Amino acid sequence: MLLSENERLDDLGLGGLRLIQDKTQFCFGVDAVLLSDFARVKYRGRALDLGCGNAIIPLLLSHKTKAAHIAGVEIQSAPAALARRNVELNGLSEKIKIYEDDLKNVSEAYFGFAFDTVVSNPPYMEPERGEKNASETVKIARHEVACNVFDVVSAASRCLKFGGLFFMIHRPERLADIISAMRSYGLEPKRLRAVHPKAGQNASMILIEGQKGAHPSCIMLPPLYIHNAEGGYTDEINAIYERT
Amino acid sequence: MLLSENERLDDLGLGGLRLIQDKTQFCFGVDAVLLSDFARVKYRGRALDLGCGNAIIPLLLSHKTKAAHIAGVEIQSAPAALARRNVELNGLSEKIKIYEDDLKNVSEAYFGFAFDTVVSNPPYMEPERGEKNASETVKIARHEVACNVFDVVSAASRCLKFGGLFFMIHRPERLADIISAMRSYGLEPKRLRAVHPKAGQNASMILIEGQKGAHPSCIMLPPLYIHNAEGGYTDEINAIYERT
Repeated sequence: MLLSENERLDDLGLGGLRLIQDKTQFCFGVDAVLLSDFARVKYRGRALDLGCGNAIIPLLLSHKTKAAHIAGVEIQSAPAALARRNVELNGLSEKIKIYEDDLKNVSEAYFGFAFDTVVSNPPYMEPERGEKNASETVKIARHEVACNVFDVVSAASRCLKFGGLFFMIHRPERLADIISAMRSYGLEPKRLRAVHPKAGQNASMILIEGQKGAHPSCIMLPPLYIHNAEGGYTDEINAIYERT
Repeated sequence: MLLSENERLDDLGLGGLRLIQDKTQFCFGVDAVLLSDFARVKYRGRALDLGCGNAIIPLLLSHKTKAAHIAGVEIQSAPAALARRNVELNGLSEKIKIYEDDLKNVSEAYFGFAFDTVVSNPPYMEPERGEKNASETVKIARHEVACNVFDVVSAASRCLKFGGLFFMIHRPERLADIISAMRSYGLEPKRLRAVHPKAGQNASMILIEGQKGAHPSCIMLPPLYIHNAEGGYTDEINAIYERT
């Protein structure tokens, strides 16, 4: 296996899973790990990752769940190509399929079937707000340039079975947009978990679960703290990394 | 001052504030205290409580804030009458005015002016769901019989100035309804705080702040825990009771 100049190969420490990342592209962070841990895929179910990047979430889900099939959609050529190499590298070509396409194009008809679970770790920031990055690839991964939260939620709804589950990690600033989008597209918010950098600080991320066609009734789970008072990872974060 | 058979008189321990409560009606709980602590009223501002019951929140706000005027709307005759007696008992008739009316009727035109702050501790439960109570008065206070969350939010929006603040305590189960209602009536969710019975348990209440006409961007505050591991009140709850 050949690595290009900017690439690095990581052993994920999970049943031998390995991941090529391009240091000039978007490298996975704690959010991908938290989302994979929060998501559920039923036994022999089908899962879809909208905006899969280098396929970190499909790889983590293939390890954690008994999914029969996992699809990843990625609009950018370079991450999509890397995603395919990561799938092959791990011998998962039979289970995981990468589609290089705009998530605005996908639907049940596009795939020929509907999914039990859709996950997404989409760009968090509105265009022209927040941190700007030099690389166009990273910018598209972080900013709502190619798609916004309404596009993501709409695509999820088009691809899910009735009763299917949607899991997303996003920023609390966008909570009202997220809930409005989910309501607009028939994905009822069912579980919400705030992620705080440490106790006493405002949330930096939210994990949200929706169900297509469900009755309204939302549970707010206990908060998840990333760091303890000493600055290390909390026991819960360590446990998530161990079981992911 | 005469107390009827079912009434009791409590000293609130706050600058001499006293409160008559009818034991057969809805008596105030921690939610009224949390909402009064969460709410802000600007110096010399006007505040409105939608569904004020026996006027506990107007009384607490008169103690905590420098509001020039506080109005309370209550649809039920018995609590509205008790609210008026409580206002008189505390010598606050110049500052607090109680309106016995349906909150569906109120608006800026109804009062002749718009408010800087609107608060509400409305009925939490949908009709025919959750706990049923013998007393019709308590039922109307707890269940969405006379008004639902959309009615409350709509009334708040009609009564607020542009830029005015809305504060509500409600159940997390209704989060999507609350945010949908706020968006529908131009009150943008700005701060959300989950209230958990204790660490590790799901939220039992949410405190939410909206602003009329504001830009979308929501902060999720650190959670508020009611009880500590020993079953007593947490330091934060004790501090809220002390400063209320």
